[in-house]
Amino acid sequence: MSVRIRSAVVPHDLKAPISGAADGPLAGLSVVIKDMFDITGERAGGGNPDWLKAQPPATRNAVVVQKLLDAGAIITGKTVCDEFFYSLAGVNAHYGTPVNPRAPGRLPGGSSSGSASAAASSACDFAIGSDTGGSVRIPSSFCGLYGIRTTHGRVDIAGAMGMAHSFDAVGWFANAPGIFRKIGPVLLDGPSTAADIGKLMVLDDAFAEADAEVAALMKDALAAMTAELPSPSHQRIAPDGLDTWREAFRVIQSREIWSVYGDFVTRVKPHFGPGVAERFAAAATVTEEMAAQARVMQERARDRIRAIARPGTLLVLPTSPAIAPLADASNAVHESFRIRAMRMTCIAGLSGLPQVSIPIGTIDGCPIGLSFIGWAGGDEALLDLAVRLSRYCGMTA
Amino acid sequence: MSVRIRSAVVPHDLKAPISGAADGPLAGLSVVIKDMFDITGERAGGGNPDWLKAQPPATRNAVVVQKLLDAGAIITGKTVCDEFFYSLAGVNAHYGTPVNPRAPGRLPGGSSSGSASAAASSACDFAIGSDTGGSVRIPSSFCGLYGIRTTHGRVDIAGAMGMAHSFDAVGWFANAPGIFRKIGPVLLDGPSTAADIGKLMVLDDAFAEADAEVAALMKDALAAMTAELPSPSHQRIAPDGLDTWREAFRVIQSREIWSVYGDFVTRVKPHFGPGVAERFAAAATVTEEMAAQARVMQERARDRIRAIARPGTLLVLPTSPAIAPLADASNAVHESFRIRAMRMTCIAGLSGLPQVSIPIGTIDGCPIGLSFIGWAGGDEALLDLAVRLSRYCGMTA
Repeated sequence: MSVRIRSAVVPHDLKAPISGAADGPLAGLSVVIKDMFDITGERAGGGNPDWLKAQPPATRNAVVVQKLLDAGAIITGKTVCDEFFYSLAGVNAHYGTPVNPRAPGRLPGGSSSGSASAAASSACDFAIGSDTGGSVRIPSSFCGLYGIRTTHGRVDIAGAMGMAHSFDAVGWFANAPGIFRKIGPVLLDGPSTAADIGKLMVLDDAFAEADAEVAALMKDALAAMTAELPSPSHQRIAPDGLDTWREAFRVIQSREIWSVYGDFVTRVKPHFGPGVAERFAAAATVTEEMAAQARVMQERARDRIRAIARPGTLLVLPTSPAIAPLADASNAVHESFRIRAMRMTCIAGLSGLPQVSIPIGTIDGCPIGLSFIGWAGGDEALLDLAVRLSRYCGMTA
Repeated sequence: MSVRIRSAVVPHDLKAPISGAADGPLAGLSVVIKDMFDITGERAGGGNPDWLKAQPPATRNAVVVQKLLDAGAIITGKTVCDEFFYSLAGVNAHYGTPVNPRAPGRLPGGSSSGSASAAASSACDFAIGSDTGGSVRIPSSFCGLYGIRTTHGRVDIAGAMGMAHSFDAVGWFANAPGIFRKIGPVLLDGPSTAADIGKLMVLDDAFAEADAEVAALMKDALAAMTAELPSPSHQRIAPDGLDTWREAFRVIQSREIWSVYGDFVTRVKPHFGPGVAERFAAAATVTEEMAAQARVMQERARDRIRAIARPGTLLVLPTSPAIAPLADASNAVHESFRIRAMRMTCIAGLSGLPQVSIPIGTIDGCPIGLSFIGWAGGDEALLDLAVRLSRYCGMTA
């Protein structure tokens, strides 16, 4: 047992909670914010103390922050994240790794690690994160939370630090299904596309990436939900292989993150935790020509995925290939998990589609999430689905 | 790994969710109800199939159920409980033991076991239970939830099966602090007594009942909360010993439950799971003279406790002496836990005072709660306190 006081929040946390409007749909609910969104008078650190040091205090709130306050939420903390959001592990060498309260000793997942940790600890009513390559979805799965990555572009990300603009999307976590849904109308801009869910497509190649017991649990869960879902069809989503898609994603992400932070990294030589310097060094070697090739692949993947995920069709897959790795496993183990995970997370990333993760149960006592990818603008349908499926959560232990 | 479909709910669950009012403070939030509250057209089973069989469908909703629906909540399930609410374990031999999703393989706690299990599984936004001798508080602690036992008499329990009327109180569970608080104004009748929290009394004898690591964690948590709480004083609450109080509680509880169910038990000879028949057999031997003596002791305890817990003073103690015992431990182990626990839970029971449990952290990966007993009518102050202290949850893992 070790006491790690409020390790989900950054050392440069708010001095006091920030109250929102007296009325509104989120009145009386508390929220924590990933330390990449501007909060007036505060500096956004992006998980790296050298970056933090170089920032002036924000002169206005990020759009998301302002909308939450206008809707009545109370901001109670700024949460730890992976450095420059460049990991799915949830490790931060400077601030400590936020606790995974649902699987102590294991990774919380990242990069929205502190937000997930706080929500899973019941320290807040909901938590804001961002998701470029899985940074809401993976911690949702690891920490047993509802989590959503929204349709790319539907939540205004202005006032947040960028990562890879082609993929960056706002997302959120909650413990409770009704609250999870309440955030949608507050943050989502148009266009919304309503449709009845008429088709369920199980992504066989994504299931094949998952541990056997993860896949089996997901299939049991789907079988139990027949009253709520259409009977499933099956498809391999990636004709060229999910690893090809993952690599295209990686190349574009590398090029874009380097364009945002490369100058800072070169000039300031910030102190990085294990793995981050290596990832930036690799990103620096990605040429525009490589990125252009990868964008051709992205275009093809996007067309393919969107042709299947038409309004009314859901794609279903495990959120993560496995339960959370042990926090004290080697960096190599964490890296190898990241590559596996990104074969699954790149589907929504490349296509810009929304994805919701539902805390369906546990394996060996560790949470695992079931994911649905919806159509463009189908975020509200995914949130409604999460509420409808909530009664099936906790089916296993 | 085993799949136990919706084990938190009874086999005679609702055929479909029951929607509440379109508007109201709980609109969009889902709730499950312990299977002891009347729901129109449904039979309340109290955890025992023979009792269930003998009941006609309810012709009206329990007051609590009606208030929740009027406030906009959606009822999504009826939850498993211990037979006739006569245990703190959360074991039910007929319907199965609801999963403790936060400590798989361990007891969920009872008697409001399914309600706690569903809330901890994120299967609902909040859950209704009842607490006579700890039936909300203990499962709150075991499952890592916010939980409240309300001031005796402040929530109308009409339309619910009785247990021991001198102690029976409605309570509820939630994962998220803002939702937890929202239920208060919906269910609490007067009189409410507002007061600033000016004094914090640590109950040394209650701490002494707890495992050393539980007591240590609670003390660390309190030390971290100095900004939110007055500096603590210390007191032994029970001059005659907590076991004397526990025994008085047990005698009165036995006499009262026998007066409610003794005739049914004698006449129908219902099939009971392990331990329940023995407890009823023991209850049958309690005479009115024994009960009268115990009531004298209760009166003394009540006066003593209320003299200390005046408006503005909080009593602090661990919610439970230990983390949840293993589910497959012997009945003797579960019984021995129950006796220890009731030395702590009888304080609020005998005095009729409200108690809130906060999911402060984990020990060996298993949740544990920190409790505050408030003054009569101080329920709202306890709910507000839970919200204020929520940011300290998850301090340990």
